[in-house]
Amino acid sequence: MTPARPVFFVSDHTGITAEILGKSLLSQFPDEAFAYTSVPFVDSVEKAFFAAQQVKTAWKESTLKPFVFSTLTDPGERAALASSDAVVMDIYGHFLAMMVAEIGHPAIPLRGRFHSMQDSGSYGSRIDAVNFTLAADDGLGVEKYQLADLILVGVSRSGKTPTSLYMAMQYGLRVANYPLTPENFERPDLPDSLKPYLPKLRGLTLSPERLSQIRAERRPNSTYAALETCRQELRAAETMLHATGVPIVDSTSRSVEEIAAMLRVKARGN
Amino acid sequence: MTPARPVFFVSDHTGITAEILGKSLLSQFPDEAFAYTSVPFVDSVEKAFFAAQQVKTAWKESTLKPFVFSTLTDPGERAALASSDAVVMDIYGHFLAMMVAEIGHPAIPLRGRFHSMQDSGSYGSRIDAVNFTLAADDGLGVEKYQLADLILVGVSRSGKTPTSLYMAMQYGLRVANYPLTPENFERPDLPDSLKPYLPKLRGLTLSPERLSQIRAERRPNSTYAALETCRQELRAAETMLHATGVPIVDSTSRSVEEIAAMLRVKARGN
Repeated sequence: MTPARPVFFVSDHTGITAEILGKSLLSQFPDEAFAYTSVPFVDSVEKAFFAAQQVKTAWKESTLKPFVFSTLTDPGERAALASSDAVVMDIYGHFLAMMVAEIGHPAIPLRGRFHSMQDSGSYGSRIDAVNFTLAADDGLGVEKYQLADLILVGVSRSGKTPTSLYMAMQYGLRVANYPLTPENFERPDLPDSLKPYLPKLRGLTLSPERLSQIRAERRPNSTYAALETCRQELRAAETMLHATGVPIVDSTSRSVEEIAAMLRVKARGN
Repeated sequence: MTPARPVFFVSDHTGITAEILGKSLLSQFPDEAFAYTSVPFVDSVEKAFFAAQQVKTAWKESTLKPFVFSTLTDPGERAALASSDAVVMDIYGHFLAMMVAEIGHPAIPLRGRFHSMQDSGSYGSRIDAVNFTLAADDGLGVEKYQLADLILVGVSRSGKTPTSLYMAMQYGLRVANYPLTPENFERPDLPDSLKPYLPKLRGLTLSPERLSQIRAERRPNSTYAALETCRQELRAAETMLHATGVPIVDSTSRSVEEIAAMLRVKARGN
């Protein structure tokens, strides 16, 4: 059996950027086995040498040359890490040089500016967005809807809550969500609390089979989870949303990231 | 006034990787103004040409050469985008070549494998983690604590909920959180429901001034928000956590990403 190739994510801060870029690149080699190690907060040349030592040890143990994704900014730390002689993907080194050449003056290195609270004032608004979304989850806080950027609607377990939270956390959008229940379908038009906010509404739907499966995890053998119940609720919800012109995203085989990116595009397009 | 330089994030999928890497790099130029545009789901040569056209138009309007961060994988689409003649940071092109040289066989391109549901089985576990965290928020679901990866403890408004959700969403960890209230401080030891889980406990603290400020946003001029109340609760909580050996992270001037990365390191170290 081939050993797993060691992969290191080295950063002078949280390591999030190195990890996301690295895993995205590694996903292009689905047949290879990788063993991950995160090494965040490498903020001195000594720590960078220590990280290089970890890389060398892993190399010796696995026999495969390690891949190292680094967002180190300090030249001394970058040189220390490079002493590992592994395949070092020096993310900042390569692209910053291209940007500096165009901008015409050097970068002002500051560790982790992006994932810190100094992140261009957007940090506070992302936390506010998460708090808003929690307070307006699952039909709560309808009196706050005028402050919402988007309001997701859909039947129970259609993926509204994780999608709302992801959009708040990632994009700083205030996303409320409102469940459509069988009582809502007794009249053909939108629930009263949603009517004033038509331009902000976005529907989520999915296949009845998938919904039934998800609901059965929560309440096995219930009417709630029965395929026929799911089919009826979804049909009623889609009819209502189509009639009122609310854009709908189908979440059946999509991840939260994909759904969020699609809703964001729709948000702009409308 | 200098116009803002146009910046494009172009992707054949959600665009999350391009956006995170791009914003991280741009944060190294704090004095420059940038105007962002995300162009996700560019999955044909035609769409790539259209994106290149958008870039050229923005260039003409702002007079500054645009920066384009691209995670396009298809060679035809990459060539079409490059026809914009802007500063194109071709993220996959550069680093994939280094990885292919070492692995010895080409990548197997598949759009958006990383941020899709095919993401190495980790997708389902991240959603499960978010659902767990919501069900074990703010002292709920103590009967599920044996399934938790971590349990955050701290006084009201010390940042437990956003941190828990971030760790679930980003790292797929099941993170419960439990509020320490004045009643808990009547006895010096940990609340009974936490005692069996000592190795999973992590404390959050912050400065009394900052806590008072955060609480005042919720309940202005209350005893709850008074500086002296905050000081007393924080002192009692820290004493309790120190006495029982629970590691503590100070969140005063740290972002959720930073706190999460530090807690993750501590999780491994212990």
